Amino acid sequence: MEKLAVIALGGNALLRDSQSGTIEEQEQNTFDTLENIIFLIEEGFNLVITHGNGPQVGNIVMRNDAGEQLYGIPHMPLDICVADSQGGIGYMIERMLLNVLKKHNINRNVLTLMTMVEVNPDDPAFSNPGKRIGKTFTEQEKETLQKDKGWTFKAETKSKGGYRRVVPSPAPRKIMNWEVIEKNARNGTIIIAVGGGGVPVYTDENGDIRASEAVIDKDLASAMLATQIKADRFYILTDVPFVYANYDTQEQKVLEFLNYSDTKKYLDEQAFGEGTMAPKIKAALQFIESGGKMSIITESTKLADKSYGTKITMEYDDADLHKYDFKKE
Amino acid sequence: MEKLAVIALGGNALLRDSQSGTIEEQEQNTFDTLENIIFLIEEGFNLVITHGNGPQVGNIVMRNDAGEQLYGIPHMPLDICVADSQGGIGYMIERMLLNVLKKHNINRNVLTLMTMVEVNPDDPAFSNPGKRIGKTFTEQEKETLQKDKGWTFKAETKSKGGYRRVVPSPAPRKIMNWEVIEKNARNGTIIIAVGGGGVPVYTDENGDIRASEAVIDKDLASAMLATQIKADRFYILTDVPFVYANYDTQEQKVLEFLNYSDTKKYLDEQAFGEGTMAPKIKAALQFIESGGKMSIITESTKLADKSYGTKITMEYDDADLHKYDFKKE
Repeated sequence: MEKLAVIALGGNALLRDSQSGTIEEQEQNTFDTLENIIFLIEEGFNLVITHGNGPQVGNIVMRNDAGEQLYGIPHMPLDICVADSQGGIGYMIERMLLNVLKKHNINRNVLTLMTMVEVNPDDPAFSNPGKRIGKTFTEQEKETLQKDKGWTFKAETKSKGGYRRVVPSPAPRKIMNWEVIEKNARNGTIIIAVGGGGVPVYTDENGDIRASEAVIDKDLASAMLATQIKADRFYILTDVPFVYANYDTQEQKVLEFLNYSDTKKYLDEQAFGEGTMAPKIKAALQFIESGGKMSIITESTKLADKSYGTKITMEYDDADLHKYDFKKE
Repeated sequence: MEKLAVIALGGNALLRDSQSGTIEEQEQNTFDTLENIIFLIEEGFNLVITHGNGPQVGNIVMRNDAGEQLYGIPHMPLDICVADSQGGIGYMIERMLLNVLKKHNINRNVLTLMTMVEVNPDDPAFSNPGKRIGKTFTEQEKETLQKDKGWTFKAETKSKGGYRRVVPSPAPRKIMNWEVIEKNARNGTIIIAVGGGGVPVYTDENGDIRASEAVIDKDLASAMLATQIKADRFYILTDVPFVYANYDTQEQKVLEFLNYSDTKKYLDEQAFGEGTMAPKIKAALQFIESGGKMSIITESTKLADKSYGTKITMEYDDADLHKYDFKKE
């Protein structure tokens, strides 16, 4: 059986903070990121690619709002907006990947799947929305939108200023169609799935599948998929080449290799940024504690350089520290 | 080998002209339409479902325009808008279908795929845009948009009034990933694909796959898929239970059974509405002349009643006229 890797592309892999979000920028970022996964194919990995949708779904929600205001077009609920973003981003990744593969003379099918993810309708997240989406509003805009649309907001940090809409971010319970994803991936097709953490759904008391107005953390959903399809490696691509403990403090420490218990300890000590790195660490640990061999957190354009990246394994001995050469696989 | 059917859902199967386009309307229409395909599963068919995106992609394009005007969010090109619509509509069909299947105690996987479709960049359609998308504009709005965005417009009929944006509608040449679609469909998974006729792409002189600013006719793309995967039947669901020759004239004639040559003759005599039924007839004939056994054009909520629907076969003898019971399959 060939090896299988799940690669979660962060927002940064597709669209950088400093950019305005044009399609040309997104296509170039995506191409550059995807060039870094070629080495995995050359090393014999089958691949499943997942991706975030933060900036894109925020834009889609705002466009729905603007379309209703300017032209009276009914706005779509959040689940449709997430599904729209899976379509647009998934297609862009698929096309860029086919071009990257062609450049490297690699012949593989690429398949983009819409993905629903089951959540618990009683998840505590539904009474405590925490996931920021869309643009930043002034206090006055916020007041109007709260009244008109019933949206919930949270203040940004003092330095950033303003308010952003927050929606619930329930935990993923099951990636739908994971069997089909695994089967096709193990046949050599590169699968793009679980975009934006998947469209959140739940089963009601009649057994019907219903939409949920929420956004699932894409790293947690990707970790769950990696576990369900028994992947060997789980990559989380972000905007830093290493994880740091106590970033930007006197005790800042770069972390290249981590075992499970030390990572858990750092996490309990809140050594990772709560809204930024901590969720990625939790996703990485979830994969390891469910039997996955290694989670790697690194920068999207550094993936192909093995001297970068924080590698998390159950025991330190599980990783060959100097060569990043995992003979046990 | 089990029988295989391709079912192309028209705009009407998802959203009716008289409706404003809310998600609740779309979900109910979709559910009602999908209940009508259950009999095919019970008769032993594997299924591929395709769908239009006329009203939806028009709305997405308008929302992009409104988002740029109101909030300065960069607008996405047409290929991304089509891909967005594949995501949102595909997800909605997938979820509704799972609920319909559950209601009928049928256990099948359902898989929604993003689909790119190759077109010829030198297709004459690119110099003669003819496909209407999006809302109707006044003459003044049209003038402004022509100047600001370089869009092309066509006048609506006198009774409707106003102008609509037109984009090129090139002929489909190849459905990408048709092998994967066939393989998974023949394994019993119900596939949703080729949404909105697929995202049009072409291969440039360097071998790179590039996006095309166009919309492919979804019936022609569906006929091509049906041919490529060697489907037994091709259903085109629309808003009338039968095809009429010379509709709304003194020679109006309802057509229930048609052979290839008579259909071709009617087509040559322009007996079918140019912008409405003629393209569907062409798609139906394309499937038959490529070896398909039967194309059926009918109303989405009449599909399960075999006394409705226009059935097109190569020879009249190919259809059992009274029982619609195709023993040769």
